[in-house]
Amino acid sequence: MKFTLDTRRLIAELKELRALTSDIHGAQRVAFSPRWVRARAWLQEKLLGLPVETHTDEAGNFWATLRGASPRELVIGGHMDSVPNGGWLDGCLNVLAGIEILRRIDTQYAGRPPVTVRIVDWADEEGARFGKSLFGSSACSGSLNMSEARGLKDRDGIGLPEALRQVGVDFERVKDSGRELRNVAAYLELHIEQGPVLLDLDLPLGVVLGTFGVERHAITFRGQAAHSGSTPMNRRKDALLAAAKMSMEIYGIAERSGGGVCTIGSCTTKPGIVTSVVEECRITLDQRHLDPTALARMWAEANAASERFAQEGNVEVSWERLWQIPPRPFHPELIALCEAAIMETCGRSHRLPSGPLHDAAEMAGVGVPTIMMFVQSLHGISHNKIEDTKEAHLELCGRAFDRLAEKTMTWIEGN
Amino acid sequence: MKFTLDTRRLIAELKELRALTSDIHGAQRVAFSPRWVRARAWLQEKLLGLPVETHTDEAGNFWATLRGASPRELVIGGHMDSVPNGGWLDGCLNVLAGIEILRRIDTQYAGRPPVTVRIVDWADEEGARFGKSLFGSSACSGSLNMSEARGLKDRDGIGLPEALRQVGVDFERVKDSGRELRNVAAYLELHIEQGPVLLDLDLPLGVVLGTFGVERHAITFRGQAAHSGSTPMNRRKDALLAAAKMSMEIYGIAERSGGGVCTIGSCTTKPGIVTSVVEECRITLDQRHLDPTALARMWAEANAASERFAQEGNVEVSWERLWQIPPRPFHPELIALCEAAIMETCGRSHRLPSGPLHDAAEMAGVGVPTIMMFVQSLHGISHNKIEDTKEAHLELCGRAFDRLAEKTMTWIEGN
Repeated sequence: MKFTLDTRRLIAELKELRALTSDIHGAQRVAFSPRWVRARAWLQEKLLGLPVETHTDEAGNFWATLRGASPRELVIGGHMDSVPNGGWLDGCLNVLAGIEILRRIDTQYAGRPPVTVRIVDWADEEGARFGKSLFGSSACSGSLNMSEARGLKDRDGIGLPEALRQVGVDFERVKDSGRELRNVAAYLELHIEQGPVLLDLDLPLGVVLGTFGVERHAITFRGQAAHSGSTPMNRRKDALLAAAKMSMEIYGIAERSGGGVCTIGSCTTKPGIVTSVVEECRITLDQRHLDPTALARMWAEANAASERFAQEGNVEVSWERLWQIPPRPFHPELIALCEAAIMETCGRSHRLPSGPLHDAAEMAGVGVPTIMMFVQSLHGISHNKIEDTKEAHLELCGRAFDRLAEKTMTWIEGN
Repeated sequence: MKFTLDTRRLIAELKELRALTSDIHGAQRVAFSPRWVRARAWLQEKLLGLPVETHTDEAGNFWATLRGASPRELVIGGHMDSVPNGGWLDGCLNVLAGIEILRRIDTQYAGRPPVTVRIVDWADEEGARFGKSLFGSSACSGSLNMSEARGLKDRDGIGLPEALRQVGVDFERVKDSGRELRNVAAYLELHIEQGPVLLDLDLPLGVVLGTFGVERHAITFRGQAAHSGSTPMNRRKDALLAAAKMSMEIYGIAERSGGGVCTIGSCTTKPGIVTSVVEECRITLDQRHLDPTALARMWAEANAASERFAQEGNVEVSWERLWQIPPRPFHPELIALCEAAIMETCGRSHRLPSGPLHDAAEMAGVGVPTIMMFVQSLHGISHNKIEDTKEAHLELCGRAFDRLAEKTMTWIEGN
């Protein structure tokens, strides 16, 4: 590549956006809010000097298109929206790196790259307001459950359709945005890791193998309330005891799964008073794995363990599925290209799955060749104002992601 | 004894009281409520034919006194108040059995027994409205914490002093009721077991050795919230995991204690969402034992275990004492008398501690020779409308408790 990315400008623009849309508690770019609208207007301004066409699709996703010799498209995606009190990089790093890459490509190819290059800013990736993440990308991919989404309300009782209307989006037509994918040949996404894996390995960058499949369940154990003073230990039907055994068991299940994770994030007890044995204990279980067979086995092991613990403790158990999504493995050839781009940039790489979901999962889910690159998180933490990445790593991720974009254009041409 | 108790009348009066003060949800004699006032008025009527003096003391406890040859007193106690939706026997069985015994003694000794015999109906044993049990007996014994009790409010914001004023009691003078104990030589209390021990042994009656001492604590484990998808298992600081280990550990602690019980009745998690490792987990621990040394050891074992689990899981732990009361062992000679009374009545007996507290604990706490007798609970359950005892067992308990009263009068004379 004769032209290299201006990573200094990338970092300067990230800081400019932060100054515009954050407060002392962190980023405040919640989707459809005034600050999110401002962030998008700012994004439009940044594109003014480039020969790109811009428009917002039926689902509220914002697209910028640099026409190339071929109509086949390289799409670079991200999201300007944040959680409340969010980090300064989650989502917008992807978009701003994409714009910097557009600038480099525009310069290098004098406004006419070999393939068409597009940036997409997905609407409401976080789902912070309505509790439904990946809104814009799932509308575009077609996987959005319309009847469920139609009924979503925010904490003030405002429905998602009404909130969309306020930003000019007609809820009933959001899936028309699917036409945007007609010519997509590859989808790239850069993201802060949001976990400690690269930090622990002291590596700036990693290749993402795909997003975990998720099995999410509520498990309820039902025993018998009984007086804490008058009930002998061997007469108790202690719902908490059975749930507690699950809390330990999931560590073994995750270990045996080879790369999966299990989390019990919530535990509630009824009657929940100091003087009574717990009658009812409800826990939530979140299990994730990149391999669907391993994920199914993790679920089955947890289910069998819960039955065993219930029997041991003379209590009953029931399961309720809260949510599930299959694993979304990324494209093998793009994985190889991403690894090469990282190796050329900093000499070391690592392959890892993504625990959190990303818009990339929606693209992979409809067969778009997809890849993500992760940059190290300091503290291994995200969705928090302390989210951060070293500037040296931001520069590296810009350069490596730009290399990946160039390699992917070549790959699209050759397919 | 030439005269035997009219146990048929005892049962008939229990049913009469139930009809007067219960609804389809159970007994509704919450202390200081209109139905509790009605229950007390009914009690007064029942005493009309007896040569007793009655009065209500400064703490709202109701006393009926049959003067004997000696001013030294045998006191039989109970409580007419119930929890909301309570059982038909808890507390009032004690009082009504006492009245039946008064009648028998009055007949047998022609109104002049060898020692003075008194019935006391303690005010607000249950603490259902203000969350403070044993109000009347602890005022009388002197153990009531006045500054704490002064601030107690019910769910409507009405303070205990105001509620007392409405039934003619001056809160600031409640401890003056202590003078009632000046001549007490022995205190007897009959109660439904409220546990399954006698039921399991298929025994109608048991001798109570004392009330358990209680150590009641909140234990808080603090780890680190972390994304359920992106945080490897070995990087987690899972506060729930440490708490879960406690849930199992307490069964071993109770077993090693020789007769104690331990209960974790409540578990709360923060942030308590399906997608995050638990940052903070708070559990309550209630430990009870009849032996103070064993109780102290149970607490120490739990404390050491919590430190161990915290260290294993890389989390922090802190303890907060919620409440404690020492064990209240009953009088050895009265234990023997109670056992003899039961053996003579039904040929089999059993010694057991009381897990729940009773007004008897307040009497034992100030050195009054005290004993309780338990009658079997069907279902082993109390504080519930399904609380029940077979009528045959009610008759046996009346007869055995009456024998105990007679034996205790003789014992008082001989001391």
